[in-house]
Amino acid sequence: MHIQAGFSPVVPGAGALRPLGIDHARITGGFWGRRQWLNREAIIPHALKWETRVGWIDNFVHTAAGDIADHRHGREFSDSDVYKLVEAMAWEVGRTGDLELDAEIERLGSLIEACQHDDGYLNTRFGNPGQQARYSDFAWGHELYCYGHLIQAAVARLRTGHEGTIVRVALKAADHVLSAFGENGRHNVCGHPEIEVALAELSRVTGEPRYLEQAQIFLDRRGHGILPDIEFGRSYYQDDEPFRESRVLRGHSVRALYLCAAAVDIAVESGDAELLAIARKQYDATLARRTYLTGGMGSHHQDEAFGDDFELPPDRSYCETCAGIGSIMVAWRLLLATGELGYGDIIERTLFNIVATSPSAAGDAFFYANTLHRRTPAAQSNLDEPLPRASSSLRAPWFDVSCCPTNVARTLTSLAGLLATSSDDGVQIVHYADAELTATIAAGAVRLRVETDYPDDGEVVITVAEAPGPFSLDLRIPGWASGATVDGEAVSVGTHRIADVVAGRTIRLCLPLEPRLTYPDDRIDAVRGAVAVERGPLVLCSESVDLPEGVAIDGYEVEAGVLPRPAGRTGATMPARRVRHDDSGWPYGSTTDPEVTDAIEVPLAPYHAWGNRGPTSMRIWLPERTP
Amino acid sequence: MHIQAGFSPVVPGAGALRPLGIDHARITGGFWGRRQWLNREAIIPHALKWETRVGWIDNFVHTAAGDIADHRHGREFSDSDVYKLVEAMAWEVGRTGDLELDAEIERLGSLIEACQHDDGYLNTRFGNPGQQARYSDFAWGHELYCYGHLIQAAVARLRTGHEGTIVRVALKAADHVLSAFGENGRHNVCGHPEIEVALAELSRVTGEPRYLEQAQIFLDRRGHGILPDIEFGRSYYQDDEPFRESRVLRGHSVRALYLCAAAVDIAVESGDAELLAIARKQYDATLARRTYLTGGMGSHHQDEAFGDDFELPPDRSYCETCAGIGSIMVAWRLLLATGELGYGDIIERTLFNIVATSPSAAGDAFFYANTLHRRTPAAQSNLDEPLPRASSSLRAPWFDVSCCPTNVARTLTSLAGLLATSSDDGVQIVHYADAELTATIAAGAVRLRVETDYPDDGEVVITVAEAPGPFSLDLRIPGWASGATVDGEAVSVGTHRIADVVAGRTIRLCLPLEPRLTYPDDRIDAVRGAVAVERGPLVLCSESVDLPEGVAIDGYEVEAGVLPRPAGRTGATMPARRVRHDDSGWPYGSTTDPEVTDAIEVPLAPYHAWGNRGPTSMRIWLPERTP
Repeated sequence: MHIQAGFSPVVPGAGALRPLGIDHARITGGFWGRRQWLNREAIIPHALKWETRVGWIDNFVHTAAGDIADHRHGREFSDSDVYKLVEAMAWEVGRTGDLELDAEIERLGSLIEACQHDDGYLNTRFGNPGQQARYSDFAWGHELYCYGHLIQAAVARLRTGHEGTIVRVALKAADHVLSAFGENGRHNVCGHPEIEVALAELSRVTGEPRYLEQAQIFLDRRGHGILPDIEFGRSYYQDDEPFRESRVLRGHSVRALYLCAAAVDIAVESGDAELLAIARKQYDATLARRTYLTGGMGSHHQDEAFGDDFELPPDRSYCETCAGIGSIMVAWRLLLATGELGYGDIIERTLFNIVATSPSAAGDAFFYANTLHRRTPAAQSNLDEPLPRASSSLRAPWFDVSCCPTNVARTLTSLAGLLATSSDDGVQIVHYADAELTATIAAGAVRLRVETDYPDDGEVVITVAEAPGPFSLDLRIPGWASGATVDGEAVSVGTHRIADVVAGRTIRLCLPLEPRLTYPDDRIDAVRGAVAVERGPLVLCSESVDLPEGVAIDGYEVEAGVLPRPAGRTGATMPARRVRHDDSGWPYGSTTDPEVTDAIEVPLAPYHAWGNRGPTSMRIWLPERTP
Repeated sequence: MHIQAGFSPVVPGAGALRPLGIDHARITGGFWGRRQWLNREAIIPHALKWETRVGWIDNFVHTAAGDIADHRHGREFSDSDVYKLVEAMAWEVGRTGDLELDAEIERLGSLIEACQHDDGYLNTRFGNPGQQARYSDFAWGHELYCYGHLIQAAVARLRTGHEGTIVRVALKAADHVLSAFGENGRHNVCGHPEIEVALAELSRVTGEPRYLEQAQIFLDRRGHGILPDIEFGRSYYQDDEPFRESRVLRGHSVRALYLCAAAVDIAVESGDAELLAIARKQYDATLARRTYLTGGMGSHHQDEAFGDDFELPPDRSYCETCAGIGSIMVAWRLLLATGELGYGDIIERTLFNIVATSPSAAGDAFFYANTLHRRTPAAQSNLDEPLPRASSSLRAPWFDVSCCPTNVARTLTSLAGLLATSSDDGVQIVHYADAELTATIAAGAVRLRVETDYPDDGEVVITVAEAPGPFSLDLRIPGWASGATVDGEAVSVGTHRIADVVAGRTIRLCLPLEPRLTYPDDRIDAVRGAVAVERGPLVLCSESVDLPEGVAIDGYEVEAGVLPRPAGRTGATMPARRVRHDDSGWPYGSTTDPEVTDAIEVPLAPYHAWGNRGPTSMRIWLPERTP
């Protein structure tokens, strides 16, 4: 078997840039270093504890024992969360060499392998004695979706230099998929895309084109109404129109994003520039018209779906954590394919404001949906109870549908893989974190030390520890960073190239982190007349626990156009006026303004930290006082 | 059996005012006359056709034949739609004396009676051979809900002077409910309130207190977590807290409103002033903080539920047609109980902007949800296919969940029962329609002729054709109608009393129907910076089919504070400026205003008529140009 080098979840065979795997990029501290520690110490053990407690791991034991029909727990896709946990553990083993986790992966792999049918079929919900028949419900069964996550776990093992049980199981399952769903097999697709992106990566890691071909078959097959019509319409699972004919992402956000990621992979591997352009156009349109300020995607709770263009109500935002991760998957693939570091802007925004927001400070509870406005105070839910209400704006320890915690875990552990890329003649730094980077360019190895407290501080010092000769260093200057300097010289936003960098050189990047006002496009009706405050990559918010005594979250208006003042290293304050509302009855009438009273200062703090200090209401978009 | 007089759906045994039944109030033309005609000629036959076509009537045939387990069609509550259609037919027979409809009621009654078990149990989805056991799913089974609508059909028959099969069946079912769910019976309630309001009215029409007592048992039993916890929480079916402890309506809107209506009935009949005050407080709070401009209620598609206070996004409004009808049920009961004609304001608003909006101009398709903002053009759906997507903003001929069409039908046919009330010494006119009214006051009969083209015209001429002596006439002057005159003299909004009215007198009421600007409470964030235009009781809207060539529904801003100009008898125009948006990418940035270009006039038309002229986008709230 051909195993491609690099501990990286995505290793394209072509494209403008090559990723640095987590064996070549290491986060050494700071914001993400703390979260990688939290992931290792709290989140991964928490997920294992809960998957054990709710019986999702025992589902494999019972399937092997033949009595699963009487003992199954969890939804139809619960196997996938075990696989995602294994994937997270696999990257963590790659990152740290943890032998206990390595043994845990083998233990889980053995439980899983014992359930696999001779022909490769594997599922604890279907197809075993006393259960509904295999492949009897493509709309909701999630069987192929589960294989997808199994395969991604195996990819993580292979990329980090391991083989073992889970790889064997996944390859057997993948070959089963090819024989069952190939050109001469069943003409079906899974209701939830995921198998496509998994097969594409499996093809890359094994060097076997047949997996890519199957991914392409699934992509082309979808969109012709081969899944049943349902209450939400076929757009829910992107079966309403072929991918190549769509202009924007639509339907269930996670499904749409996973499918789009696969389309980029297929386009890159098959040299299909037209398909790449189509995927890019859809994603770019989604960024321009269907994305919240936090990078969150999805306006509909009902079907966990994108809304229409500019339908982005903050108090009904869904912004599923997994959709944020799906968006990062697409943007990263587009960055590698096109070489445009600008895609790093949405990745950074989504990492700091969705991925970092989901887990509680203790790593023991998670947002499933990430609202931009909570009107009534609420704390996180009972830490001892799974929450059926995934869509509420509460962090919960576990959910009946629990895709998000393990998705956060696998993203955090492999996060260093998003820091930088290389090309034949240079290195590109996409994200700024305290890190060590080793890139391979045509002339040899480049080793960089990045020192920074970003986003607490805007200074980033890059030292070239080793270089085979002069190389070019590209820095992503975020779109919001006008005023940035490199070695004291002003630079433009976008990609800043420093030519002829040699070993021993130190480069000092300064990103301006003053709090700034951000206004929405006028077509986002739900936030007209409101303003947000951002500071560097961080979206700030107002929480009721920070407001002066007696001021409610809807009890003030900020002064129009007045700049926020910095507070601490990541916060701000906004001058505002208290307002007194007319509570006499019917809330519509011939006059508009509430009565404005005394001046107050409204403290703002990073959105990612909200909801960690007891029951609170919160808002990102602040109403402006009309002059 | 004691049958109380008056062809009225609601006949309280106490309270400030007595309703005029549809035998004493007759609509003779105009806006509602045309809709009563449409109901008779189109909507009722349409509902019968569809209930036959989709097999909901045949469910009774198969149940009687014993083979329903293999032949059932429709959702678990489909029986209730047959009962609601029978109720609509019953009022229509009362209104018109139609013998064919009368025979149709008997035909349906016989089909239904053949399914009733010896002990009174009746349902085509549960409890028959091969089916799930009776009363095995109180959360979703809707068995008691179905009885409720059966009983309301029987009430309509009894009130209009008929007995016959459906009455016999309903009484037997009601007695079964009492024996099965009384104090010594099963300690349960139905997931969907409805049985309560039905039993209360059955008690009134039969004079049997035991039905009221059972309604009270159900009301008191609910709210103690006796239904299972579900994804939406127990607030979904008002089982999270006792009714007497709630401060505002919450959860599934229709359920909350039906329950509140029952609470008013129970309070009135049992003389429980505290319960009445609680119900009133909850409804008043709901009007003040959880109601759309159209009178629509419900902000959540996901659980068809109320949102938090002021969470009223127009592009995600649910505003189920049935919730509008439920709101009218509550408001009318409160009006009768308290004597405050002001409750007529919300009834009128909801009639003109929800009930009149639901059916298409041809009466062959219906809105289930009534959005205030449709961003992308769409026509009504295929007239030959039921729509699974009840929540979309499309009129459809029928739905998998089809509560709304028959609810509209029963409301339209009994509509004259909302026009006026009487007290011992006078008559109160609540709604203005071309009508003949005969009220009984202490001294004898008062006969009034009301002539008007309202809401096309603001003049209402009331002629006293007959009176037993001087009486007082109260006129509801709507809250928006400042500038109204009676016989040329200015009158205040609220209740205007004319004392000592005698036979032969003519009273001329003029309601000002100039289009007016309406602003939202500042706390309704989703419509900040926008204004609506109303004309009399009509909410107006902008439809893309009316806009100048090349102007999109989000392509203009109206001039701030400029009064709309009347157009025709019910429309208006607003001066506006076209805007050109920046489509360069990320929709958030350091500047706010779109580029303002040429002046245009934006035509506005009644919201109730929207979506009748081909694919169109629409908005009620118009963005104001910031000066």
